[in-house]
Amino acid sequence: MCSLAKGRQKENYAVIGLGQFGAAICQSLVEANQEVLAIDINEETVNDFTNLVTRAVIADASDEETLKDLAIGSFDHVFISIGQNIQASIMATLLAKELGAKDVICKAENESHARVLEKIGADQIVRPERDMARRIVFHQLQPNIVNYLILNDNVTLAEVKVDNPEFVGKTLIELEVRNRYHVNVIAITSDGHVNISPQASDVIELNDLISVVGDTNDVDRFNRDANMG
Amino acid sequence: MCSLAKGRQKENYAVIGLGQFGAAICQSLVEANQEVLAIDINEETVNDFTNLVTRAVIADASDEETLKDLAIGSFDHVFISIGQNIQASIMATLLAKELGAKDVICKAENESHARVLEKIGADQIVRPERDMARRIVFHQLQPNIVNYLILNDNVTLAEVKVDNPEFVGKTLIELEVRNRYHVNVIAITSDGHVNISPQASDVIELNDLISVVGDTNDVDRFNRDANMG
Ligand SMILES: Nc1ncnc2c1ncn2[C@@H]1O[C@H](COP(=O)(O)OP(=O)(O)OP(=O)(O)O)[C@@H](O)[C@H]1O
Ligand SMILES: Nc1ncnc2c1ncn2[C@@H]1O[C@H](COP(=O)(O)OP(=O)(O)OP(=O)(O)O)[C@@H](O)[C@H]1O
Ligand SMILES: [Ca+2]
Ligand SMILES: [Ca+2]
Ligand SMILES: [Ca+2]
Ligand SMILES: [Ca+2]
Repeated sequence: MCSLAKGRQKENYAVIGLGQFGAAICQSLVEANQEVLAIDINEETVNDFTNLVTRAVIADASDEETLKDLAIGSFDHVFISIGQNIQASIMATLLAKELGAKDVICKAENESHARVLEKIGADQIVRPERDMARRIVFHQLQPNIVNYLILNDNVTLAEVKVDNPEFVGKTLIELEVRNRYHVNVIAITSDGHVNISPQASDVIELNDLISVVGDTNDVDRFNRDANMG
Repeated sequence: MCSLAKGRQKENYAVIGLGQFGAAICQSLVEANQEVLAIDINEETVNDFTNLVTRAVIADASDEETLKDLAIGSFDHVFISIGQNIQASIMATLLAKELGAKDVICKAENESHARVLEKIGADQIVRPERDMARRIVFHQLQPNIVNYLILNDNVTLAEVKVDNPEFVGKTLIELEVRNRYHVNVIAITSDGHVNISPQASDVIELNDLISVVGDTNDVDRFNRDANMG
């Protein structure tokens, strides 16, 4: 857990469905010192969680009485991460909302699943496999963009690894980064050391990571030039 | 697919195991205009891919002859995204490396699975459910940090949503962002419009996203103050 997320107040979470994703949610919440009720229909699965979470119960989350008994409506946040059994996922979501849960976060298998969950009142819908696949394919296609944030449709902030020999040993002013690419250099990471006040006279070394912000097309052009070598 | 990943040369990919993750990998690769061979042991699953990818075949990826016939060693990149059947995932990885595949990217179910994959030569190991769970829990605990990049162990770049009334209507100079928090403001996003050259006289509005870079503790302090209201 990144230290930015530390030191928050305690809230209580219910996690329904302890597949890969639900399990990882439990793990992260426990690391962040939150109260977690973990629920799964499978006894063996639940047994693996008794020592990790606040409370672990075997239950069918598509059954109204069961969710009532567990006071699902009283939790600050309810994660529903049932995958293959889409009908159970939908029923559990519907019931959690009817029982008054304020923040129900559902994992969706596909587009139509997501649409149904939205209609019945899911507060947040996540598609972890799809989102992660996008990130990984992006990284595969652009290995020199180590990291990026999309600030809006047109503006991107990217951490670009430099391996074009024509860039190496030059200062930012010699490279005319501002004039030629219209991007701002906001940080330079060299051997793990980050300089957040880059100067025009700073020299670029091989494999430095240059963080730039600008128009997505300009950032793209900078990235191509910085690692065409 | 973010436009930063467009316009790259074509490479050929094999994707073995078409669960949620493998399927999403295929989808992203096709959107990025890459050549994709999709493989799964399940006939019904494979049928869903015939119209999407370059070629889709029903095959057991833990069988050496099969992978040889498919010329797995000749692909630029091989994704192995078999989940539950960890033994099949390990065999397929071992065979792909033995057959000469240069870049084998494997999805791991857990820590011990990841360690075995590494030992037998997997070039990249990904844990999509865990990584995505961490991101989502982080966002849940820090809803005002819309986005962030960890530049190194100590330095973070974060997009912080401002909703503390004491910040609203003030300029950056009035807020003394530099002096009080030691962070640099690198962009201000207001109503979807991004300003990448923030001036000391720029006024902060409610729900503006301020992108700052600095020491992680300083960024954390800025985030707390910007949305304590
Ligand atoms: N009605 C139900 N009530 C409670 N838990 C359920 C119910 N139906 C299924 N589950 C549990 O949900 C968990 C996740 O389901 P499943 O493994 O099918 O999804 P998945 O999409 O493969 O998820 P992941 O990718 O996170 O592993 C399983 O542990 C399963 O036992
Ligand atoms: N020996 C094999 N050869 C080829 N494909 C296989 C083999 N064994 C399993 N698969 C396929 O791998 C795919 C993914 O497996 P599974 O659904 O168990 O993993 P998972 O962890 O739930 O993955 P995801 O979260 O991506 O859905 C399935 O479609 C399955 O048919
Ligand atoms: Ca599963
Ligand atoms: Ca999964
Ligand atoms: Ca699956
Ligand atoms: Ca899954």
